[in-house]
Amino acid sequence: MPQRRNRRAQLADAAVEVLARDGGRGLTHRAVDREAGFPEGTTKNYHATRESLLAAVARQLADQHTAAMHRLREQMPDGLGQADVQALYLAMLRRMVTSARSQFLALFELHLEAVRNPQVRTAIGEVALAGADSAVQLHAAVGEPISARGGGLLEAGMLGVAMSMLSLPEDVVGRIGFDDPDPLGRSLLGMAAAAEPADGLLRGRAS
Amino acid sequence: MPQRRNRRAQLADAAVEVLARDGGRGLTHRAVDREAGFPEGTTKNYHATRESLLAAVARQLADQHTAAMHRLREQMPDGLGQADVQALYLAMLRRMVTSARSQFLALFELHLEAVRNPQVRTAIGEVALAGADSAVQLHAAVGEPISARGGGLLEAGMLGVAMSMLSLPEDVVGRIGFDDPDPLGRSLLGMAAAAEPADGLLRGRAS
Repeated sequence: MPQRRNRRAQLADAAVEVLARDGGRGLTHRAVDREAGFPEGTTKNYHATRESLLAAVARQLADQHTAAMHRLREQMPDGLGQADVQALYLAMLRRMVTSARSQFLALFELHLEAVRNPQVRTAIGEVALAGADSAVQLHAAVGEPISARGGGLLEAGMLGVAMSMLSLPEDVVGRIGFDDPDPLGRSLLGMAAAAEPADGLLRGRAS
Repeated sequence: MPQRRNRRAQLADAAVEVLARDGGRGLTHRAVDREAGFPEGTTKNYHATRESLLAAVARQLADQHTAAMHRLREQMPDGLGQADVQALYLAMLRRMVTSARSQFLALFELHLEAVRNPQVRTAIGEVALAGADSAVQLHAAVGEPISARGGGLLEAGMLGVAMSMLSLPEDVVGRIGFDDPDPLGRSLLGMAAAAEPADGLLRGRAS
């Protein structure tokens, strides 16, 4: 239902596609106008600078990510177990390199932008925190608690593994056994479960 | 001894600094000329297109990485144990977010470029393979073998963890226990050790 969404959201969606296809260098106001099918100047009207455009993309990804995590936790039926949480993470990893490839590549571009742009940094922080927090809560809900650091390691590990699957040549992917996401996802979950506790706020919220 | 190195290497070093400071978008021939202190037009003479400049940077990082890994293995004294290998990886992770920050951010930019640029993709593949291969050989040398997939997971995990340490806001870094690289490095090594075997070439070479 794209026609029912507001123009700001449509512009951010278009910017995600441009970022994923052409990289940070390709992200210009005109490229977003073209991608969204809007008259030239539309994006500039909403976001005067490239920095504010990037911040808006990061904000939209953060809001979508946080909302998806909330929905996930609210809709979790009773009686779920460790195997269901595992299946969920394996599915997420598979999505990052297939149907959600554009959003993931845009998120990865924004991680690099975050090093220089404080607004993007704040939004990317919310994405990471929503992800780590959800990991902590999902694991606690099935009686297999993990630490905040474990949640953070799961997020960061998914980032590095998905990026490697997308960026490395096919022969390298095969030689290091990165052609099947499932054992990679199981390894990341095992790492999260074994992580040494961190005395962060997340831990307090999960316990 | 920068004056004893050839101009190509100096240009690649300058390009690494530009990539780390200004991102892929800031990488132009002129910016590299300025960074290297060479007359305008020098970089263009060596690398006619931006794509070939990026490929040269990736090639230099791959060569440096492979050479460093070879030196490391050749210079490894007898009688090293698991604790020494662990100390090495913790030191590498600390370097990625401190003294080797520029090289690491450039490598991360190149991972994104690799999605679109086949020459960069090949070179980035060599970096990843040299890293995974070294991890396999170092662990085998101390009698604690890991699989090729374990080596790949260690490389990919270091990538995601170091990027998160550099890109996330300070408060988020604290909340997920990412302010101390040591427990993160230990978790990544634990994941590498526990990874399910992959029947890749690396495994054959290590066994």
